Amino acid sequence: MTLPSLETTPIPGLVVVRLDRRDDDRGFFKENWQREKMLAIGLPDFGPVQNNVSFNASRGVTRGIHTEPWDKFISLATGRIFGAWVDMREGETFGTTFTLEMDTSVAVFVPRGVGNSYQVLEDGTAYTYLVNEHWRPGIAYPALALEDPSAAIDWPIPLSEAIISEKDQNNPALDPATAIAPKKT
Amino acid sequence: MTLPSLETTPIPGLVVVRLDRRDDDRGFFKENWQREKMLAIGLPDFGPVQNNVSFNASRGVTRGIHTEPWDKFISLATGRIFGAWVDMREGETFGTTFTLEMDTSVAVFVPRGVGNSYQVLEDGTAYTYLVNEHWRPGIAYPALALEDPSAAIDWPIPLSEAIISEKDQNNPALDPATAIAPKKT
Ligand SMILES: Cc1cn([C@H]2C[C@H](O)[C@@H](COP(=O)(O)OP(=O)(O)O[C@H]3O[C@@H](C)[C@H](O)[C@@H](O)[C@H]3O)O2)c(=O)[nH]c1=O
Ligand SMILES: Cc1cn([C@H]2C[C@H](O)[C@@H](COP(=O)(O)OP(=O)(O)O[C@H]3O[C@@H](C)[C@H](O)[C@@H](O)[C@H]3O)O2)c(=O)[nH]c1=O
Repeated sequence: MTLPSLETTPIPGLVVVRLDRRDDDRGFFKENWQREKMLAIGLPDFGPVQNNVSFNASRGVTRGIHTEPWDKFISLATGRIFGAWVDMREGETFGTTFTLEMDTSVAVFVPRGVGNSYQVLEDGTAYTYLVNEHWRPGIAYPALALEDPSAAIDWPIPLSEAIISEKDQNNPALDPATAIAPKKT
Repeated sequence: MTLPSLETTPIPGLVVVRLDRRDDDRGFFKENWQREKMLAIGLPDFGPVQNNVSFNASRGVTRGIHTEPWDKFISLATGRIFGAWVDMREGETFGTTFTLEMDTSVAVFVPRGVGNSYQVLEDGTAYTYLVNEHWRPGIAYPALALEDPSAAIDWPIPLSEAIISEKDQNNPALDPATAIAPKKT
């Protein structure tokens, strides 16, 4: 059994997973997420209830920085992105950032409370992710401005040239007063 | 809550799901699978343990016809396919076929015992699916020749021009003697 490998990051619980992508004449095949193997390498038992796909027509599309109240296991079905994460949880690592260029051979587990965002590096990039709670229309969650000066994400494509949703052009700056408290259990 | 709609087919349990794909300036967003909504429209409670992605570089790639011992929820992250299914279960509908051209707005639930296959209609098509059992290396499962004369799938691209794995060039013909028995519970 070829296990994917796991790498930690400066953000506690945010981990990078290198997948066993099998390339052949047809294209590739990958186990994008496999419960047993993910447990074996130390990911939490995830229990996805939703699989989302966001397709990005062109290089430059930038989405985020979103902190919905659930864990995410994110990856690509095709294309390339620059992923950026900001710890928005109360505590010592509040404000810590991590960035990673991702192709289809890598996945990232994003724990609840960590802001998630990405910039598309190739036309026709398909981003796919699993989450362990259901989204509801109108749900409010902390978001962070893509250009926040204290997070200071070094976007490969200047935000002035990026394609950004209306909603994501109005997100607030990082503010310790709105740090996310640990989930009550 | 916008529910996807469900359509039955001549193969019992094989159902077509029309998804609520939201197109915008960036591309699209879709809830590709959402447990609560899928239950609400009548799909079985699925419990995925694995998410696979197969990427197909070119039009003409043809994969199948495979009957692994688990249910599948299949869809596309980008591109277009011709999907073909053959009922390989014991009983009155043994040998029944169903075909459907699929883009990213549609998904199909394929119950255990139904042969699954597809032909790629667009370069760069990413096929993604959820399954409710883990694959193991060397697992044996019934497969069916793509050109089987009694299934007689009307492939849009002639199989002589298709890109097919070595393994899939050696699958047997449809044979009632190897029909799949219902799962013991
Ligand atoms: C997140 C989500 C959105 N939607 C709808 C709402 C909109 O009509 C449409 C697009 O939603 P938006 O919030 O604009 O999508 P978006 O792509 O900007 O949001 C995403 O950005 C990523 C960086 C985050 O990690 C994701 O969790 C998500 O927040 O889809 C759902 O139906 N279900 C969902 O789960
Ligand atoms: C199915 C599978 C394959 N593999 C490996 C085995 C090979 O090295 C590589 C490619 O496997 P193949 O069987 O050639 O892939 P394939 O794309 O020909 O097989 C697929 O065809 C679809 C029509 C079926 O619905 C799928 O369930 C699957 O059978 O990936 C896994 O690691 N995990 C898996 O779950």
